[in-house]
Amino acid sequence: MKTDISIAQETKLKPIVEIAAKLGLTEDDLELYGKHKAKISFDKIQSLEDNPLGKLILVTAINPTPAGEGKSTVTIGLADALNHQGHQAIIALREPSLGPVMGVKGGAAGGGYAQVLPMEDINLHFTGDMHAITTANNALAALIDNHLQQGNELGLDPRRIIWKRVLDLNDRALRQITIGLGGPVNGLPREDGFDITVASEIMAILCLASDLTDLKARLGKIVLGYNWQQEPVYVSDLQVEGALALLLKDALKPNLVQTIYGTPALVHGGPFANIAHGCNSVIATKTALHLADYTVTEAGFGADLGAEKFLDIKVPNLPKSPDAIVVVATLRALKMHGGVNKDNLAQENLPAIKAGFANLKRHVKNMIAYGIPVVVALNRFVSDTPAELALLETLCNELELPVALTEVWEQGALGGKVLAEQVLATMAEKSSHYRRLYQDQDSLQEKAEKIVKSIYGGKSLQLSAKAKKQLETFAKHGWDKLPICMAKTQYSFSDNPALLGAPNDFEVTIREFVPKTGAGFVVALTGDVLTMPGLPKAPAALNMDVTADGQAKGLF
Amino acid sequence: MKTDISIAQETKLKPIVEIAAKLGLTEDDLELYGKHKAKISFDKIQSLEDNPLGKLILVTAINPTPAGEGKSTVTIGLADALNHQGHQAIIALREPSLGPVMGVKGGAAGGGYAQVLPMEDINLHFTGDMHAITTANNALAALIDNHLQQGNELGLDPRRIIWKRVLDLNDRALRQITIGLGGPVNGLPREDGFDITVASEIMAILCLASDLTDLKARLGKIVLGYNWQQEPVYVSDLQVEGALALLLKDALKPNLVQTIYGTPALVHGGPFANIAHGCNSVIATKTALHLADYTVTEAGFGADLGAEKFLDIKVPNLPKSPDAIVVVATLRALKMHGGVNKDNLAQENLPAIKAGFANLKRHVKNMIAYGIPVVVALNRFVSDTPAELALLETLCNELELPVALTEVWEQGALGGKVLAEQVLATMAEKSSHYRRLYQDQDSLQEKAEKIVKSIYGGKSLQLSAKAKKQLETFAKHGWDKLPICMAKTQYSFSDNPALLGAPNDFEVTIREFVPKTGAGFVVALTGDVLTMPGLPKAPAALNMDVTADGQAKGLF
Repeated sequence: MKTDISIAQETKLKPIVEIAAKLGLTEDDLELYGKHKAKISFDKIQSLEDNPLGKLILVTAINPTPAGEGKSTVTIGLADALNHQGHQAIIALREPSLGPVMGVKGGAAGGGYAQVLPMEDINLHFTGDMHAITTANNALAALIDNHLQQGNELGLDPRRIIWKRVLDLNDRALRQITIGLGGPVNGLPREDGFDITVASEIMAILCLASDLTDLKARLGKIVLGYNWQQEPVYVSDLQVEGALALLLKDALKPNLVQTIYGTPALVHGGPFANIAHGCNSVIATKTALHLADYTVTEAGFGADLGAEKFLDIKVPNLPKSPDAIVVVATLRALKMHGGVNKDNLAQENLPAIKAGFANLKRHVKNMIAYGIPVVVALNRFVSDTPAELALLETLCNELELPVALTEVWEQGALGGKVLAEQVLATMAEKSSHYRRLYQDQDSLQEKAEKIVKSIYGGKSLQLSAKAKKQLETFAKHGWDKLPICMAKTQYSFSDNPALLGAPNDFEVTIREFVPKTGAGFVVALTGDVLTMPGLPKAPAALNMDVTADGQAKGLF
Repeated sequence: MKTDISIAQETKLKPIVEIAAKLGLTEDDLELYGKHKAKISFDKIQSLEDNPLGKLILVTAINPTPAGEGKSTVTIGLADALNHQGHQAIIALREPSLGPVMGVKGGAAGGGYAQVLPMEDINLHFTGDMHAITTANNALAALIDNHLQQGNELGLDPRRIIWKRVLDLNDRALRQITIGLGGPVNGLPREDGFDITVASEIMAILCLASDLTDLKARLGKIVLGYNWQQEPVYVSDLQVEGALALLLKDALKPNLVQTIYGTPALVHGGPFANIAHGCNSVIATKTALHLADYTVTEAGFGADLGAEKFLDIKVPNLPKSPDAIVVVATLRALKMHGGVNKDNLAQENLPAIKAGFANLKRHVKNMIAYGIPVVVALNRFVSDTPAELALLETLCNELELPVALTEVWEQGALGGKVLAEQVLATMAEKSSHYRRLYQDQDSLQEKAEKIVKSIYGGKSLQLSAKAKKQLETFAKHGWDKLPICMAKTQYSFSDNPALLGAPNDFEVTIREFVPKTGAGFVVALTGDVLTMPGLPKAPAALNMDVTADGQAKGLF
């Protein structure tokens, strides 16, 4: 079996200007980054405003195994298949984060014959968006500490600064640190910590902003901490939102690349769905909708995380809601949810699939509750047996649920044919009537309770003493009308990663809220979810290398 | 008077492919970053190896005022002038660091009508080289802490890890920190600190490496700390030099841009000269020498720092040494060295110029001692009076020192005409016979003493108890044959920034050595020089902004 990188490196890429031409974009509309990557200019994006909007297809998944269920791969393969059948489709994906690429994953640009290219660049520095976000985030942190050092005119309470530094790396040793040590020339000693860049508010802002003006306004609204009177202090009080917006001006432009099949893909923004809102940028999705008849996009991890946030946080910032939702499942993951140990997932096990189907069923039910038609995509693995496949089909049929086998990893566009047909048929048959799960006027607690009960299937929401107190002060500051962004393990509907399948009767505990007033939501930290991952014992970095002439090795 | 950014934004840039064509480069030799920036491919760089080498002109300066003496501006203007006179000249400059851009300087891409463009991009993220260096540096740090966390097979002594993290920002609060707090899941608590990226060993390695193979070998040779037996532990022991090289593969390619006049400029690598070796990359300089008849390059800060390191550290890695050295002076700086307070530098003061001339004289003498012909460039300011200019000319004539007035800030290429003629005449008259200041076999102490006595004009070198002890262990590890990279204030020949002019009878104290065995030198920290700057009370960031359509504001 060929590796992802060898398939990628064997592919002859088309010049990106040729890919752009399929969308009616000229070279003048692009800012090239090498021959195979480009950003789309603000001028062009603005000029598209009056174009009609295409159909929007959201790809999500069941709760994944640690290896992932191939959601990006299916997203890519579905768009490839639509194009292969003569339709005009475009992809809107998130950018990979270098932390997991160097840690466990080794890459995140699809797989097999359903990849976005050049995968080496996309997995490494790409067009520098992540670096710009890291830089803007840490420039703000440096400006805050400098403000403390230079007289602290705003009366910032150094114990109550909530703005953290970030790096786009997995670096557990930076989670909790003390800074400013070594005497007066080194600033004021205080506690601090680093998050991973993809969890940062600036990442969320970049992904939700409609344009540069909106970006700057959102940056100004960031709460960086509290003063001695415990009143919130905003970035606009520091008057540096202009500088931060300047640092982000190019990062805000969507990146155009291509799939192996030649499908155009906008890869832009990269928040994680377990600790952030998990969707690619509003600008990229909107631009895609204006450029093609079908936009295929994804939301991170399981539908309880990424899709919930897509539908409750992102959609209100989009000109339209999805016309269909594809829920990706694998027999391996269903078996895991049915109680099988991860070492035995390759063995046929019909009872486990039947039991694990409950996980898929709940996700599908949740998506249908949003008023959007659903198709199940079974992402086939070589170990899947005919009996297992037949069982899943039966289970889906019992629910009158359209299901399609996809083999895009192995076959690319051809492997997505059945899924594409199924999605088109479903959209032709059923129309979408989007209903948001909660309303702005619901309190934060009500919003969280609706998510826990309606989406997760939990019994109740618990709040730590700290979280309870925060709710009072947040209401006072007028932040209780914001949407909620749950930070939760991706492995379970609950806040306990070990609770697989479709558990009931569980409580979800919010230990702390974090206001992200610039992004326009409040993060709720549940369980022991961490906003800075660590590296495994044998990081993927150990296998990475580069040849003397610049060829990448060891990416997946 | 127009600002730098307004002059820059009024300039109609040529497509970078047109600039490249002047050098015989085709679009296939380039990797475009937008329309006005490009990297040159490794293939092309290799194919140039057999081209003849052009003349090399090194631009350096006297000890500067805090505002700088316009060294980059003169470098750019001199090359513009050479091209204007029908010669073929190219520029090899360093990349600005975002720290000072957002702190005091607001920009570092030349000034007035002698700028490299697009100055907004060059001053901000450019082609991402700095970010790649930051990322590789911090990925190594994360891998080290992960090694400690995952069993510490190499027996690293956590108290003796010397690899620091970096950010390309001025952030004093990160100079001295403790990391790994909060219990076992957050790693092993230990002391750490951040340097600015431009001071990092990876920056030095990128600037000294001859190609990707050499880069990887140098990365493997980095000492990251010591084990419990106090033996050095190298990056190659962690086996991650491949991953680090992969992260740097694009950053290693030189960046091509243009001046306002249209002169090609390779802007690549950005080490500071006060805390690092201060020269642009060997690859860029070598490529420039192969591409044009005249390469004009600069070395950071005063000639005691940048030029000394260019000549003693960089030249041994180049195919040739400079054919001429231009020492830039301003009357303002001479007056400052003559004892005038910085608020009164605009007033005519002949005695102060006469006194301050000693600073220029010593720098010139030092450069001549390297066997290279010298030209003095007087970078004219509007406040300079005819009597002052005449005095400087007289003082130079007394030493038979060619001197040329430059007005490149105001007049661009035309303002550099006299200097260009003078440099050409000098190179025609005198040939260069490069002699290095010290030899590899000199001990580290002998090397440092030669620098302190011959270059700085000091009386003696003092070593702290720590530094003395280090010399013994470094000799044991075989590191005493490496060149020395002095970290010292840029404002004085001595290690005391207040000691202006041409002081004598001073001691220079080395408080600590830092082995940079991958870069291939040993850093000597003198005085209280800091490897992570701080922000001023009113940072330049406060004036920065971006318009709704993406125009930068507040850069200089």
